Amino acid sequence: MEEATLQSAMAALGIPKTHTTVGLANLVAAHKEYRSLFVNRRLPEDGWSDIQIQHFLFILSTLDTNNKRLTSSSRWCGVGEREGRLYSSLVANRHFGFAHGMGRSGDIMEPQPKAVGSSVLVQLTLFMAMDAIRRCSGLNVKYGILLPLCTGMSMSLVLSSLREANPDRSMVLWCRIDQKSCFKAISSAGLTCVVIPTTLEGDEVVTNLAALEEAMSDQVLAVITTTSCFAPRVRDKVDHVAKLCQTHNVHHIINNAYGLQCASTSKLINRACVVGRVDAIVCSTDKNFMVPVGGAIVLSPQENIIQNIGKVYAGRASSSPILDLFITLLSMGMKGYQKLLQDRQQALESFAQRLSAVAEKHGERLLQCPSNTISFGITLDSLARPRNESEDEISYLESIRKPISALGAMLFSRCVSGTRVIPRLEQKTLGGHVLAGFGSSHEAYPHAYMTAACAIGVHPSEVDEFLVRLDKTIHEFKKKQQKR
Amino acid sequence: MEEATLQSAMAALGIPKTHTTVGLANLVAAHKEYRSLFVNRRLPEDGWSDIQIQHFLFILSTLDTNNKRLTSSSRWCGVGEREGRLYSSLVANRHFGFAHGMGRSGDIMEPQPKAVGSSVLVQLTLFMAMDAIRRCSGLNVKYGILLPLCTGMSMSLVLSSLREANPDRSMVLWCRIDQKSCFKAISSAGLTCVVIPTTLEGDEVVTNLAALEEAMSDQVLAVITTTSCFAPRVRDKVDHVAKLCQTHNVHHIINNAYGLQCASTSKLINRACVVGRVDAIVCSTDKNFMVPVGGAIVLSPQENIIQNIGKVYAGRASSSPILDLFITLLSMGMKGYQKLLQDRQQALESFAQRLSAVAEKHGERLLQCPSNTISFGITLDSLARPRNESEDEISYLESIRKPISALGAMLFSRCVSGTRVIPRLEQKTLGGHVLAGFGSSHEAYPHAYMTAACAIGVHPSEVDEFLVRLDKTIHEFKKKQQKR
Amino acid sequence: MEEATLQSAMAALGIPKTHTTVGLANLVAAHKEYRSLFVNRRLPEDGWSDIQIQHFLFILSTLDTNNKRLTSSSRWCGVGEREGRLYSSLVANRHFGFAHGMGRSGDIMEPQPKAVGSSVLVQLTLFMAMDAIRRCSGLNVKYGILLPLCTGMSMSLVLSSLREANPDRSMVLWCRIDQKSCFKAISSAGLTCVVIPTTLEGDEVVTNLAALEEAMSDQVLAVITTTSCFAPRVRDKVDHVAKLCQTHNVHHIINNAYGLQCASTSKLINRACVVGRVDAIVCSTDKNFMVPVGGAIVLSPQENIIQNIGKVYAGRASSSPILDLFITLLSMGMKGYQKLLQDRQQALESFAQRLSAVAEKHGERLLQCPSNTISFGITLDSLARPRNESEDEISYLESIRKPISALGAMLFSRCVSGTRVIPRLEQKTLGGHVLAGFGSSHEAYPHAYMTAACAIGVHPSEVDEFLVRLDKTIHEFKKKQQKR
Amino acid sequence: MEEATLQSAMAALGIPKTHTTVGLANLVAAHKEYRSLFVNRRLPEDGWSDIQIQHFLFILSTLDTNNKRLTSSSRWCGVGEREGRLYSSLVANRHFGFAHGMGRSGDIMEPQPKAVGSSVLVQLTLFMAMDAIRRCSGLNVKYGILLPLCTGMSMSLVLSSLREANPDRSMVLWCRIDQKSCFKAISSAGLTCVVIPTTLEGDEVVTNLAALEEAMSDQVLAVITTTSCFAPRVRDKVDHVAKLCQTHNVHHIINNAYGLQCASTSKLINRACVVGRVDAIVCSTDKNFMVPVGGAIVLSPQENIIQNIGKVYAGRASSSPILDLFITLLSMGMKGYQKLLQDRQQALESFAQRLSAVAEKHGERLLQCPSNTISFGITLDSLARPRNESEDEISYLESIRKPISALGAMLFSRCVSGTRVIPRLEQKTLGGHVLAGFGSSHEAYPHAYMTAACAIGVHPSEVDEFLVRLDKTIHEFKKKQQKR
Repeated sequence: MEEATLQSAMAALGIPKTHTTVGLANLVAAHKEYRSLFVNRRLPEDGWSDIQIQHFLFILSTLDTNNKRLTSSSRWCGVGEREGRLYSSLVANRHFGFAHGMGRSGDIMEPQPKAVGSSVLVQLTLFMAMDAIRRCSGLNVKYGILLPLCTGMSMSLVLSSLREANPDRSMVLWCRIDQKSCFKAISSAGLTCVVIPTTLEGDEVVTNLAALEEAMSDQVLAVITTTSCFAPRVRDKVDHVAKLCQTHNVHHIINNAYGLQCASTSKLINRACVVGRVDAIVCSTDKNFMVPVGGAIVLSPQENIIQNIGKVYAGRASSSPILDLFITLLSMGMKGYQKLLQDRQQALESFAQRLSAVAEKHGERLLQCPSNTISFGITLDSLARPRNESEDEISYLESIRKPISALGAMLFSRCVSGTRVIPRLEQKTLGGHVLAGFGSSHEAYPHAYMTAACAIGVHPSEVDEFLVRLDKTIHEFKKKQQKR
Repeated sequence: MEEATLQSAMAALGIPKTHTTVGLANLVAAHKEYRSLFVNRRLPEDGWSDIQIQHFLFILSTLDTNNKRLTSSSRWCGVGEREGRLYSSLVANRHFGFAHGMGRSGDIMEPQPKAVGSSVLVQLTLFMAMDAIRRCSGLNVKYGILLPLCTGMSMSLVLSSLREANPDRSMVLWCRIDQKSCFKAISSAGLTCVVIPTTLEGDEVVTNLAALEEAMSDQVLAVITTTSCFAPRVRDKVDHVAKLCQTHNVHHIINNAYGLQCASTSKLINRACVVGRVDAIVCSTDKNFMVPVGGAIVLSPQENIIQNIGKVYAGRASSSPILDLFITLLSMGMKGYQKLLQDRQQALESFAQRLSAVAEKHGERLLQCPSNTISFGITLDSLARPRNESEDEISYLESIRKPISALGAMLFSRCVSGTRVIPRLEQKTLGGHVLAGFGSSHEAYPHAYMTAACAIGVHPSEVDEFLVRLDKTIHEFKKKQQKR
Repeated sequence: MEEATLQSAMAALGIPKTHTTVGLANLVAAHKEYRSLFVNRRLPEDGWSDIQIQHFLFILSTLDTNNKRLTSSSRWCGVGEREGRLYSSLVANRHFGFAHGMGRSGDIMEPQPKAVGSSVLVQLTLFMAMDAIRRCSGLNVKYGILLPLCTGMSMSLVLSSLREANPDRSMVLWCRIDQKSCFKAISSAGLTCVVIPTTLEGDEVVTNLAALEEAMSDQVLAVITTTSCFAPRVRDKVDHVAKLCQTHNVHHIINNAYGLQCASTSKLINRACVVGRVDAIVCSTDKNFMVPVGGAIVLSPQENIIQNIGKVYAGRASSSPILDLFITLLSMGMKGYQKLLQDRQQALESFAQRLSAVAEKHGERLLQCPSNTISFGITLDSLARPRNESEDEISYLESIRKPISALGAMLFSRCVSGTRVIPRLEQKTLGGHVLAGFGSSHEAYPHAYMTAACAIGVHPSEVDEFLVRLDKTIHEFKKKQQKR
Repeated sequence: MEEATLQSAMAALGIPKTHTTVGLANLVAAHKEYRSLFVNRRLPEDGWSDIQIQHFLFILSTLDTNNKRLTSSSRWCGVGEREGRLYSSLVANRHFGFAHGMGRSGDIMEPQPKAVGSSVLVQLTLFMAMDAIRRCSGLNVKYGILLPLCTGMSMSLVLSSLREANPDRSMVLWCRIDQKSCFKAISSAGLTCVVIPTTLEGDEVVTNLAALEEAMSDQVLAVITTTSCFAPRVRDKVDHVAKLCQTHNVHHIINNAYGLQCASTSKLINRACVVGRVDAIVCSTDKNFMVPVGGAIVLSPQENIIQNIGKVYAGRASSSPILDLFITLLSMGMKGYQKLLQDRQQALESFAQRLSAVAEKHGERLLQCPSNTISFGITLDSLARPRNESEDEISYLESIRKPISALGAMLFSRCVSGTRVIPRLEQKTLGGHVLAGFGSSHEAYPHAYMTAACAIGVHPSEVDEFLVRLDKTIHEFKKKQQKR
């Protein structure tokens, strides 16, 4: 509505001009911010209020074609097989009227003729996320795509898109990381996974560059590395891997699931892009931006890589994870996101040291993995009974596996979530591959251990409370064991 | 935002012009409806969708000054004692950002400098309600005011405003209607209530015009009549009363709590306004428009009466009941409200007859009160034991009062709400006045009876179910009694 | 639902027992908090999450009778004239299903048979508010009532209830405070206001105890004092007034609109209750608890005073303001509310001093009003042109009134809200009373001045920004004037 | 909370026992419905109110571990890399507190230890949807899985899961249907698509069984057929195909995108399952149940097929589309869903006939495709200029393609959405396959035509309006052409 119309309409309602001038100035100021978002396509410095966010969402959803109650005077009549009709007003309201999802049968990023507002929503969210990643996380990668899929499925989509251009290459080299999704992503895409074992450097489980190089062949479509993981596994040496990939002309995909919160990881990836080859970087939205599970952002220095990913997704998709990210980014603003990253950084300063103190109190120690700045481990070797002279190591390890695992369950039942207790010699078969030492990402990690993460959004009081409960629980655990 | 800006911004996002043209046409069409509401100030023919309503509400609340998160770059800084700051986002969202309520210390209808959107909301709601009342309910009264108060307190406010101009008159003649609020409204306003008894015409309890005339004096500030009530009380003869009031130069206030749903009542009031004096008509919003409890609309043929009411309310008020009415009216549209009135009319056609049938099955009969088209009564005389020859009537009636009342409780425990069971000879003291036959609005109504209403929003299946349960319950009631 | 049922039902859904045990423990823990609220009726120490609050609200609203879609199998059928039916689901959802408001025709605090959940909501909110007031604000008054009315109308209701017991007393002594609502509250209640002038003590405008005592008579129903107000008016000497009222056997009502945020005011009122007579203390909910406009809490050391207030409200009322307070208090918890009070206290420490610095920069000074710890004033005398020798003071003051007032408008147009600019010799007629020096609460306050408040919820950045803008605006103001 | 506790707590709040008894009965009745859903796992007969649905959702989300504000007294402390923390309360509220999505890295249907409520939500939605499909749609297939993916990606997932068990078969026979998603689904899964041409039977485009049989080989993994499509393509003869697949031991997947609304389609699929082989039936949730885009349900007579699909999805997923379906199904109830199906059936009765009438008015005719009961076509041959004797057919058809297509754009600009205008001799290349006559699913369909659908949720007034606008638009179209 034009200002003049509003002004005179309000005058007709008996509202003094001095009031309407102030009110319209507020409306104009709000529109200015909306326009600025539209035109600059950057994350605003300051977060918006919920009222502003909702106002803007309703403007966008009014651009879609379905938001009119069906009455004889409705502007639109729909005679397609899908017309964005929503049965439940509860559902309509929780989506602010958006019903059409994102994308079209040809491409998940393709604008929809019936749903301009939805198309805008997706594009603006992408621009804001890219801006946040570049300016706050420090990752300098030019192109990106938002997917309403978890990192695993996104990885699968990336692989599918690469295969289309390289139909003769069917092998993927996977620098071992003990997490099922990525492994399954490879087989979901119809490709063959070759597990590249890791190696030890002190306590750290690191990339085995030699093994990787040896596995290279013209059958290899891509190498998958990982830059956010549980200690004692540390981020892969993606710069070295990038060089190898360039040399061997093989695609390189980085699984950076929750690495955006770590500035040094971003730097490492930036270097990899410069010194070698990086085709795609897959990041989770929920783990980096505090939204519900279900979205990912894939980044690439090359535009065509990103475009091909969009084309592989066969059909429309739910835009709900994108809507969550849109709201959250606008609510944070640049300052809010920076504060979250700083708060984590601050929590981090003492995290390792305090965890170490608890460990030492119980005769254990912190695993020294300085390249992992999110996940931390402490040994748990003393939790098990000592090995009898008579028994061989394997039987011994097998016999103590279960008792040690019990610590994890005890912590969970004491309302500590997120810790992982890894006994030695765990073994798992994934799609035919036997992975010895499962959980540690290494065949024979020499310690039983436990991990805890200092991730974005953690509250200082949670850390305090965790350390108290951990201390108590180990104490109780040992006491119990002595009784037996 | 201007269309051109939006169009080019969307083009920059990669959205084809054919799409944006359609989307903008939708936005323009929506704005056209908003403008039309602003300019014409009439209830739209067709209801709006929830999405449209919310979009419009956020436009309005953006006109208020408080809807900006407090950040260093906030446009507004507030150093008053009340700045519309809301602690809970749940609260902010449920009010669509409105925090300032309505009115100012001087007048509840006065626009607020800080809250132009709130001021607009109140004015538009009033215009739409007046339009609905005029065009659907058929009540031709020119001026009105919305109050976030129930009918009783609204009545009190009306009386206060009348007293200010007539400080020497302190008596109010109240055509007896057995309902506490109105009586209390008089004493809350610091006035003295004179109860004018009713009289019988057949089954109907009607206005006693002779008694009313006799009570007229220069001490009398106003007469209060009622046009919506429980059978066998029927609406007051407000046309005759209006004439009397004109003759005696006494104010006349009509309590039309839920009468807007009844076309013949509106006609009667229209006539009263023409042939005599009507100063104010008080109607409930919840009972007429299906919103939560807490609002009223006061109508008057005279502008100054309405203006004075607004001035008596001392201070700001919650605009929540007005917000509810705003949403509901927009959601209904003219057609939706008309349909509700028609549905009631249709339910009405068989209501009395079917209720009569149930009554007759149990040896009772329908009370013949044709002037009451909302509430219906059936006699319950046979529910009580017959009178022994030896006992006097009063002792007899006293002894059967409780047993008869039990039917109401039985119905309620069978999930029938809204019925009223009135035994004979109930008595109540209200502020010193002894009201014999309390409940029936008559000193000595010759029947015990029960009432049920056919009110706006009643669902046909409710009526069906009510009649079934009533039948069963009377049956059980009688069976139980026979056992004793 | 019983845990055992849930546990086995979830097992049947294929959910492992270890999971369900954890989940049920969460549910049990939540229910424990709900029960604790029910049983202890105290504000929880820690605030609840929005999810918990909503869960609890839906439990309560499920206790009401109307929350069932109308279908053939509905449990309830309603045949009353008001059945809590809501047309719009948007309206139903924003009230969490509550439709019945609060109270009954007899008493606003009376439980409603059809709406047990609504009744519980009102009671629990009252208990929590009383707990917050006692434990955080430090006000030791035993009884209270929540009203969905602003402070002015609440004051009116209190006066009406007092009059009922003292029908022969019709005068109210009002210690002058230049704010319309309270004055109007007196006339709305049909009583006569006697304005007791104030007196000066240094810069402070204080209670004129002598004038008050002189006005005492057996016509006087009550004295109204004020404990939260704009500087240079300071809170009334309610302890002395309380003694006077006790001596003269006159009711004493304290208007403590936004005083709950000030510990020293609470202490003063506590003392007044001990040393003399205090009948009722009226406080705003929005100004003290950061909810939307529209609610008040009235406190009294005497139970019957509170009960009578409830009885005067004629009819049901909107419970929306109570719902807002309920949500807000639960969201704050004791710690959240205490933090707000502490934050204000902290902002307060430097507020006066920094405001003083700005004033002095422009040749003005802070008004020394140490008894007012919320509102602060600075002189503005130098803003006006000096008086010519030839002109008399009154013409001079009249001629400069408007130019000085312009500063307020300038600040508002620069998005500073809440300041008040008071020129000298403003005059206003309220209900026949001529109030000279209107705005300052004193007949002849010797300065033009401006006030700003440091109220609950103010953000430090707002204070910073205000001081910057004030400085700039005065500067611009003076520059402009020099040009003329 | 136990009833006894509540009862006594409410008594302590001063609420009479008669009230609390009624209120608790309501709560108990609500819990009974919740329990019934849990225990019977069937779609309720009557829909629930929004209040009930929300109450139930908050019970479920309280079972998850993250719904506690982070305070010192919080029960849970999270030290994982993902703890369900949500930044925005707007986001948290729109998901009713659910943050964990669905599934685990191993399986999308796997329950989550931290999120029992989310696990229950998914299972109950699946059971309700299966119940609705069985009892209303009439499809008798025992097993199913809900996927937060569109039908195309779901198809891709099904193919991936089948390939895992048949790694040597890489070809998929696709009975041509001109829609990109399904084609892309095949290549996304890394398989090779063989397009099986269609054939004509009268106006109908039908399955070419001979061509299909001929293409069978031991390289073939699966056949994909389609049962909901645009006229003149009709549903595939899935019963015959099922027999062929059984004979050749080849998987058979049916794309039943929006076929659940058509009873005869369900019957045909039932028969196919009985007489031959059907491995999976893929259905859209948005097109069948009026929820936003983004979900699918895959059905199968075999449990292991369904289980394998769940295992292929690599990781967690957004549960938002499942939440929408949950709310919508509960809101509909069995009766609501049946009514929608009946309403469509009723609209259907006259749809073809009225469309035919409009066509004939302009010298065109309805395409006779009785096997397609959702989409209808009319010829548009007369819209083009007649062929000159001199020109060959191909040049002629090419020259008239664009003008005919313009009708679709005209309809869209007149706010008619969902029609498709298909000129003759359109051609498209999909992944290397040249599809002549694209749009009609046939190489050389002898007519230009237009389609319109009579799909679930269509409002009678939409149909009326569509026919009016179609008539007008063709009229204008022809007029325009004559001018040239």
